[in-house]
Amino acid sequence: MKLAILFGGQSFEHEISIVSATTLKEKLSDFELTFIFCDQDHTLYWIDATKMKAQTFSSGAYTKEPLLEVTRGGFIRKKRFGSETLQMPVLNLIHGSDGEDGTIAGLLDFYNIAYIGPRRDASVFSFDKRYTKYLAKALGVKVLDCEVLHKGGSRDVSTPFPFIVKPSRLGSSIGVSIVRHADALDYALDVAFEFDESVIIEPFIEGVKEYNLAGFRAQGAMHYSIVEEPQKSEFLDFDKKYLDFSRSATVNEADLDASSVRALQENFATIYGSMFQGALIRCDFFLIDGEIYLNEINPIPGSMANYLFNDFSKAITQLLGDLPPGNKIHVNYQYIHTISAAKGK
Amino acid sequence: MKLAILFGGQSFEHEISIVSATTLKEKLSDFELTFIFCDQDHTLYWIDATKMKAQTFSSGAYTKEPLLEVTRGGFIRKKRFGSETLQMPVLNLIHGSDGEDGTIAGLLDFYNIAYIGPRRDASVFSFDKRYTKYLAKALGVKVLDCEVLHKGGSRDVSTPFPFIVKPSRLGSSIGVSIVRHADALDYALDVAFEFDESVIIEPFIEGVKEYNLAGFRAQGAMHYSIVEEPQKSEFLDFDKKYLDFSRSATVNEADLDASSVRALQENFATIYGSMFQGALIRCDFFLIDGEIYLNEINPIPGSMANYLFNDFSKAITQLLGDLPPGNKIHVNYQYIHTISAAKGK
Repeated sequence: MKLAILFGGQSFEHEISIVSATTLKEKLSDFELTFIFCDQDHTLYWIDATKMKAQTFSSGAYTKEPLLEVTRGGFIRKKRFGSETLQMPVLNLIHGSDGEDGTIAGLLDFYNIAYIGPRRDASVFSFDKRYTKYLAKALGVKVLDCEVLHKGGSRDVSTPFPFIVKPSRLGSSIGVSIVRHADALDYALDVAFEFDESVIIEPFIEGVKEYNLAGFRAQGAMHYSIVEEPQKSEFLDFDKKYLDFSRSATVNEADLDASSVRALQENFATIYGSMFQGALIRCDFFLIDGEIYLNEINPIPGSMANYLFNDFSKAITQLLGDLPPGNKIHVNYQYIHTISAAKGK
Repeated sequence: MKLAILFGGQSFEHEISIVSATTLKEKLSDFELTFIFCDQDHTLYWIDATKMKAQTFSSGAYTKEPLLEVTRGGFIRKKRFGSETLQMPVLNLIHGSDGEDGTIAGLLDFYNIAYIGPRRDASVFSFDKRYTKYLAKALGVKVLDCEVLHKGGSRDVSTPFPFIVKPSRLGSSIGVSIVRHADALDYALDVAFEFDESVIIEPFIEGVKEYNLAGFRAQGAMHYSIVEEPQKSEFLDFDKKYLDFSRSATVNEADLDASSVRALQENFATIYGSMFQGALIRCDFFLIDGEIYLNEINPIPGSMANYLFNDFSKAITQLLGDLPPGNKIHVNYQYIHTISAAKGK
């Protein structure tokens, strides 16, 4: 089965995306894979599978690979004489901005290219942690309360210590700090505002139980991964999470009873709804006093959370078999005809 | 000043967009305008200003005009020998899907083309009436409560009669009905579900006062239009609203005291926030028992609500002078270098 992996992007998580892509090269070896690299300037390159290693990108060697342009239904390689078109579904594996903020979704939708990944609304609601909370609350899924601060605005925080400071719109723990004392606040905010115009403040709950669950909808049913209780020091820092993106060995299932697993799945399905159709997402939950709270939605999880699925290739095949159709609207100019008739011209 | 008007689109409001574009041709005659038509298949044409009339499109004559492709920073016209690049800011004038759902925003962002129009998150929150309510509630702006029904799901409605049935995601009153009796419900739902997978039900308030206000932020300040009390029969039907998109004469200001105007402006500014930066939007409000309610956000109002501005050209010039910068992230591969060093390769 043909599949193009689109990775890289104009994103703080650009490098993580490269790691994810090289991981999927192994995990999806039964697919006929094409690798499309998006550099930080949005130039696209067709990367030969044998060159799919970190050094190809960090050394700049990728610039010698063939250029691709986006065209209706696929990608085109211009040659001296003629051109070659690549037509196949795309797996959007660009983490962070571009891939998860709706830019790539808009691009692929405009060019009518089928893809695995979040659509525009799914992107917007999962990319910004403030909007994730709007969505969860509207759907009746619990989230931690938060305060929002804006760059250059007030730095008064009413959440009691300790709390977490997070840029509103980044993943992979970039710019995130735990603040335990007032004198650490300014530095934590300075760090977070390096990455975003707004930050959120959430209570930090010592030793909170965290559970990760991935899944997707296909052929009319939800399909879930196993539940993992992620290992953490205090919380995952970027370096640790970075290594995490190269995970490929299946993990051990969290020690949870069947009803707790079911409850996590129900919360997952509520969030997934119809909005995330076409995407394989990972939801990270907290369990606090027996209640489930949504922490965040990863609409393009690191290495697609392959390590949570017993049969990851099958999951991707199922998804590919049920991608959302594009927007199809037939324009017939009936109103212009009516108006023209009314005006007598 | 150079400006490209991008119009048409794969949208139920495709024809309305053509009317908007021909209206702006007159209203922005002091600009150096380029007209870019997006047909229902997303093919782009460069339309000569002299051909900017409805018949060019309804007759199919536009297909004889030069083709354009999107490229970094602009649009390119391929010629037999060489090519010509158009580089100028774009006014996204595609109403409804494509233009207001984030597709065009994603496309223009990807290619780093400056534009007037809603960004991706602004699009998602204004395109779907459900999400507009999430946003308004989170920001403390009042909205009418609503029920949501899904295609193929329950048709039980608890809102008392009369109520309005609206597709979640369309503008221009398409698919909207007022339901006064139980026996009219099924037909109203059938009509609305023709256009969307979900519909919202809102109370219909006989004779409710409605006020429209347009505006934008530029150079650190909000700039508002006058407030209009739109004329309506019962509510604007599509044909009436369609004619409405060709409005170009400045309207009369609504009969409101200064404090009411200020209150509308404050609600507008709260919604606009930083999310709508780069867009000139129109918010439609209700006034119920002295309280202001947001009805809907039009992030690309018909003919850009030119008729609400005393100096529309100046408004567009101000906006063009303060468009949001693109996403600029410099990738330096420091993590890959670190990891490679740690691995000893």
